[in-house]
Amino acid sequence: MEIMEESDSVGIVKTQYFTFAEPPREMLLECGRSLGPITLAYETYGELSAAKDNAVLILHALSGNAHAAGYHQPGEHQPGWWDIMIGPGKAFDTRKYFVICSNVIGGCKGSTGPSSINPQTGRPYGLTFPIVTIHDMVNTQKMLMDHLGIEQLLCVVGGSMGGMQVLQWVVSYPERVRLAIPIATTSKLSTQAIAFDEVGRQAIQSDPHWKGGDYYGKPIPRRGLAIARMIGHITYLSERSMHQKFGRKLQNKTEYGYDFLADFQVESYLQYKGDHFVDRFDANSYLYISKAMDYFDLAQPYGKLEQAFANVLAKFLVISFSSDWLFPSYQSKEIVSALRHVGAETIYTEIQSDYGHDAFLLESVQLSSLISNFLSHGRKGAS
Amino acid sequence: MEIMEESDSVGIVKTQYFTFAEPPREMLLECGRSLGPITLAYETYGELSAAKDNAVLILHALSGNAHAAGYHQPGEHQPGWWDIMIGPGKAFDTRKYFVICSNVIGGCKGSTGPSSINPQTGRPYGLTFPIVTIHDMVNTQKMLMDHLGIEQLLCVVGGSMGGMQVLQWVVSYPERVRLAIPIATTSKLSTQAIAFDEVGRQAIQSDPHWKGGDYYGKPIPRRGLAIARMIGHITYLSERSMHQKFGRKLQNKTEYGYDFLADFQVESYLQYKGDHFVDRFDANSYLYISKAMDYFDLAQPYGKLEQAFANVLAKFLVISFSSDWLFPSYQSKEIVSALRHVGAETIYTEIQSDYGHDAFLLESVQLSSLISNFLSHGRKGAS
Repeated sequence: MEIMEESDSVGIVKTQYFTFAEPPREMLLECGRSLGPITLAYETYGELSAAKDNAVLILHALSGNAHAAGYHQPGEHQPGWWDIMIGPGKAFDTRKYFVICSNVIGGCKGSTGPSSINPQTGRPYGLTFPIVTIHDMVNTQKMLMDHLGIEQLLCVVGGSMGGMQVLQWVVSYPERVRLAIPIATTSKLSTQAIAFDEVGRQAIQSDPHWKGGDYYGKPIPRRGLAIARMIGHITYLSERSMHQKFGRKLQNKTEYGYDFLADFQVESYLQYKGDHFVDRFDANSYLYISKAMDYFDLAQPYGKLEQAFANVLAKFLVISFSSDWLFPSYQSKEIVSALRHVGAETIYTEIQSDYGHDAFLLESVQLSSLISNFLSHGRKGAS
Repeated sequence: MEIMEESDSVGIVKTQYFTFAEPPREMLLECGRSLGPITLAYETYGELSAAKDNAVLILHALSGNAHAAGYHQPGEHQPGWWDIMIGPGKAFDTRKYFVICSNVIGGCKGSTGPSSINPQTGRPYGLTFPIVTIHDMVNTQKMLMDHLGIEQLLCVVGGSMGGMQVLQWVVSYPERVRLAIPIATTSKLSTQAIAFDEVGRQAIQSDPHWKGGDYYGKPIPRRGLAIARMIGHITYLSERSMHQKFGRKLQNKTEYGYDFLADFQVESYLQYKGDHFVDRFDANSYLYISKAMDYFDLAQPYGKLEQAFANVLAKFLVISFSSDWLFPSYQSKEIVSALRHVGAETIYTEIQSDYGHDAFLLESVQLSSLISNFLSHGRKGAS
């Protein structure tokens, strides 16, 4: 533990759980159905200031979880998913900021989702779980902020689906966010991105082990979920980064195998990624969360994006990556343009990167410098 | 029939079949195994000139077939797959040219492939069918040209995998091709394209009805093949064309369904395309042909692309499409650069199009003008 404290790691951390919306006070969801009780998994790093003005809320992407930094056990090799950005002296400096990472409902990482037990039946919800939206995710996170006594967040930040939540936060609760950092995100998915999501869902639903979502305690739809994940992985990388990483290199052979086993390294890589994902993610959650992303259309209830942003109070740092073809830069530019139209103070940076959509997890040097400047500036500006 | 003859259609046509490599004179394939007998399905339109100098060989893409133009029956609504380019007065003017379209081995459209009966066992080959390559496809087409008595082709032309065959033709049989038109193609697939192919194959092989390829006469792997096709379809379209065609338009509803049925038109479209494909294509052929594309690497046996082209004699018209991200223009430029390096007379055009890879089937006006000029010029040049 002494070594941990000297390092730039937040050290050993523990996932916490907040349960609310106990019946009969269920939460009304956007789909019109009610859900309760609801549990949210979350982690915190650093200390909340006496003035409660240093809280940073981190929101994760499709397959993410509340464990954004540090380790759950001594000796673990793999820290939280954004450890590179969170810790003493890092962009989200835990000596200055109280960092919260909240999981999403619909997921399978400790928050209420389709694999949770429905208290009314004593069995997992499966497909009887209601469809949740990005808006619903944000409404539950707002309940968590109330619970933590945080009236105004210094910053809300997230990449990909996390960025969608950031945008929903500033629209739904404008007075509760001072700084917003939507990264590699969009106000609505492209048709192509919806198409890829749908093929992934078809792959899951075509797996005979899926059984209409009622597979808990039985063999799980491994193949379908692995295929959905493989499709996802291709879209997270750029063509160039795949070329640089794998090219046409063969896997453990010097000549073509002339069979249907993996010849190329990229094939083995995808198979590995798909198989590995199945051990840590629930197929139904994949359906629910990808659907939430597809449904997200921030402007739709307002007619125009400018009108959606009409009441925002936050300052913005919008970041996109040049080779991200799943959430292309033009989508961030649309957000920036609408924000500036309504007079929101907005910095926009397109980071030149070959890493594609995954860049938001990888380009830590550039992200760190942009974000730490924005945070310290923004904090001063309002104090 | 009279109306047909006045129109620009080649009218009613019939698929023909050429069988060769009868045992014990099987054909040696690139994988080291032998195959025979081999049947190739092909169609011809127009008349071979007395000098046999007006033959144009058309080569098709992954899911294509020998039926490139005209109709098989009176009253049919759907003509051959490149009818827009082939017929009296069209780019491949059947009043001037003798047009041949050859199917590929490994397929399921009348040529020998995994669904064919293995004469040694009396049962379909299934996965015992040898792996075939683009080189093997071209070697069988050369046998067909010998059979038809065509010593030199006026032109070899094809898009996508058809373009790979064009490139292999000029390298393998340089003295037998005067003009070559590789369209929307590459000398080797990108890592990303291999990755998409592999996910499609995984989807097929994960379908419990696939049964190691031994499903003939039993329920077929419909879902797996449909998913592979859906993935393919996304890659054939550009993001922009999907946006223009579908956007976020809903299918037969005015509000989200809040379920896992298709909400968006793009979802229904993909499902339709996937389901429809299953009725006309064999899952094992999809495995074999996609693998042949992945294996294709024209430069590999020679070290460099320039060396592969060292002995080419043809003149080239290379065409790519600006929004084709599966076979991006830079790949055509690599081909052009290598051809010019060895002194091959080469015209290159990148057609500005939003249609993505599918543009080679759709941008008929621009293709027609480029190709008809190139053909009449090239024909004169050598006569």
